[in-house]
Amino acid sequence: MKTTRLEAFSDGVLAIIITIMVLEMKVPHTVDLAALKPVLPVLLSYVLSFIYIGIYWNNHHHLFQATEQVSGGILWANLHLLFWLSLFPFTTGWMGENGLASTPAAVYGFVLLMAGLAYYILERTIIAKQGRDSLVAQAVGRDWKAKLSLVLYLVAIPLAFVSPWIAGGLYVFSALLWLIPDPRIEREMKKREE
Amino acid sequence: MKTTRLEAFSDGVLAIIITIMVLEMKVPHTVDLAALKPVLPVLLSYVLSFIYIGIYWNNHHHLFQATEQVSGGILWANLHLLFWLSLFPFTTGWMGENGLASTPAAVYGFVLLMAGLAYYILERTIIAKQGRDSLVAQAVGRDWKAKLSLVLYLVAIPLAFVSPWIAGGLYVFSALLWLIPDPRIEREMKKREE
Amino acid sequence: MKTTRLEAFSDGVLAIIITIMVLEMKVPHTVDLAALKPVLPVLLSYVLSFIYIGIYWNNHHHLFQATEQVSGGILWANLHLLFWLSLFPFTTGWMGENGLASTPAAVYGFVLLMAGLAYYILERTIIAKQGRDSLVAQAVGRDWKAKLSLVLYLVAIPLAFVSPWIAGGLYVFSALLWLIPDPRIEREMKKREE
Amino acid sequence: MKTTRLEAFSDGVLAIIITIMVLEMKVPHTVDLAALKPVLPVLLSYVLSFIYIGIYWNNHHHLFQATEQVSGGILWANLHLLFWLSLFPFTTGWMGENGLASTPAAVYGFVLLMAGLAYYILERTIIAKQGRDSLVAQAVGRDWKAKLSLVLYLVAIPLAFVSPWIAGGLYVFSALLWLIPDPRIEREMKKREE
Repeated sequence: MKTTRLEAFSDGVLAIIITIMVLEMKVPHTVDLAALKPVLPVLLSYVLSFIYIGIYWNNHHHLFQATEQVSGGILWANLHLLFWLSLFPFTTGWMGENGLASTPAAVYGFVLLMAGLAYYILERTIIAKQGRDSLVAQAVGRDWKAKLSLVLYLVAIPLAFVSPWIAGGLYVFSALLWLIPDPRIEREMKKREE
Repeated sequence: MKTTRLEAFSDGVLAIIITIMVLEMKVPHTVDLAALKPVLPVLLSYVLSFIYIGIYWNNHHHLFQATEQVSGGILWANLHLLFWLSLFPFTTGWMGENGLASTPAAVYGFVLLMAGLAYYILERTIIAKQGRDSLVAQAVGRDWKAKLSLVLYLVAIPLAFVSPWIAGGLYVFSALLWLIPDPRIEREMKKREE
Repeated sequence: MKTTRLEAFSDGVLAIIITIMVLEMKVPHTVDLAALKPVLPVLLSYVLSFIYIGIYWNNHHHLFQATEQVSGGILWANLHLLFWLSLFPFTTGWMGENGLASTPAAVYGFVLLMAGLAYYILERTIIAKQGRDSLVAQAVGRDWKAKLSLVLYLVAIPLAFVSPWIAGGLYVFSALLWLIPDPRIEREMKKREE
Repeated sequence: MKTTRLEAFSDGVLAIIITIMVLEMKVPHTVDLAALKPVLPVLLSYVLSFIYIGIYWNNHHHLFQATEQVSGGILWANLHLLFWLSLFPFTTGWMGENGLASTPAAVYGFVLLMAGLAYYILERTIIAKQGRDSLVAQAVGRDWKAKLSLVLYLVAIPLAFVSPWIAGGLYVFSALLWLIPDPRIEREMKKREE
């Protein structure tokens, strides 16, 4: 089975997730600038989630470029990832609409954690299928970035009850960590060509 | 006519269905964990429907991989399937938002039944077009799984009025039955290659 | 310029239109069968619009299969068609939520009429670009079906104020007229191959 | 890395943006023609935004046709553009639902400005990657149209507080400027073929 249709379906789901999040920004019923004030925290949490979905799309893109064949296991590992990402509009809205409160910030982090785990499982499922000497396996390597961000989310969740701002800061930091698209696969591809 | 554009359109519709279901999970207006309590049954029915749409996508994927040409009849049999699947967000929301009540559980099962029938019709339309010796026909065979799940839904609908939990249990059981992606087509493909 | 990306974009828009219409079916807050009663007319108008969007997708599919190159004019004629189709969720919701009243039925017909005109313009723009001897031109021919349905909508709009049921009947009749996918292009393709 | 999946993802996002804007047109609860009166300004701002998204899609289409390879920088410049375009449903709804008031008109212009800047950045990122002698660089040239429309938005934003109608007029004028699809890339392509 080829990866084309799995990629197309994932692209569709990610495109919809990234776009319907904006529906949580409710159109104000007054027309002065002050009307935008309650929208601002929703906008900020939207920006953060937009960047996260963007990161997932980029990494997903790289990952499947190095993948040649899709098995049933990979299909379901991919759907499992999409499930957790599909909860982003909900947690983004909850965190944004109520200022930055502890529980919504912790729940936001929990969904980040589960999505991170799901991505990790997807990666491992692909490597298990393609073999340890495959392009993906070599390229992904030990993947310290993925592991570090999982640790960051794990730490941020309880800290959200100390101060939601610390949790928020850790989510932003982890996003910055990933913003630079993963050069490992591209590097590995070049190496092999040579 | 090739299957590419039909697959792309179906992928689009399925991706949207699977994603807009999450909009039924309304963002709470308070920020404590208790605020998530009314969201929980909606989340559970969302998980079930997510898995069902995932199953349909997987099977659809396998089915059209074995299909070479699309006729007008196949186009409409496919749209008929998409129609019943498009009612999932409505029945999922109704079943979830009101705890697990009898009528919503029965209506949920009715839409499952109709989607199952629509899939069966699609399968038969494709086989009729491709011939009894075709890859699809051989691979699908007598399709006991499809028939069994239709029976399960048929049984679950009246039982929902005895207890909606029995109906819910049957829907979960039928989903588990399908969770393992259909190996028949892959097996048949390998056989032919040899 | 090839037709691939135009088809992909149109598929995306049509897939979203056909799916978000279902959001107009509001989840009831009670759990008895009577709760579905106000949903029924919305469901019926949804079914009609679902079939119409399906027809447009089928015909669009056939049309662009016979089209080789896309010009700026074709891009905009296509967007013009998508614009009118994007109003379907609104008119479908209005016609459905208020029983079958005169003005919503007339407005529904007006959008059908404009979409029909937009499709006709798109067809003519493609033919003008591809030439009178092209596959499209030969296949589409004088297109009596398109013209007849335009006349039907034109007649239905004022009749909606006599009785919305007459208008509704004409919309259903026109849909039935189109349900059979256009065999002309396929026939013409076969002829040329021979 | 090829442009295919980036184009598919962008198509998906643009298709969703252009379609969910229509959800801001709330279905009236009465059935007379007067019920459409409050919908009219929303419809007009929807038409304007539909045309703008159409223009962006057309130009994006042309731009990536001349692009051969995608780098990490291009991926993020593209997501940056999609972010600003994703705010269109919000600003369109705000401008439409409250008649044409000053602040919403200015905010609409601000998002137009940022989307215009994001497109410009994307263009420059692609040219930086492909080189000054590339097809894109030659075709885009000095891009006076892009620069002029940025100036128009910059002028329109403060003028919205004098009269929102002046701002609205400038947005319409700028859209008309772009409605004619960019013939530069097509021209340059033909030249090279010769």
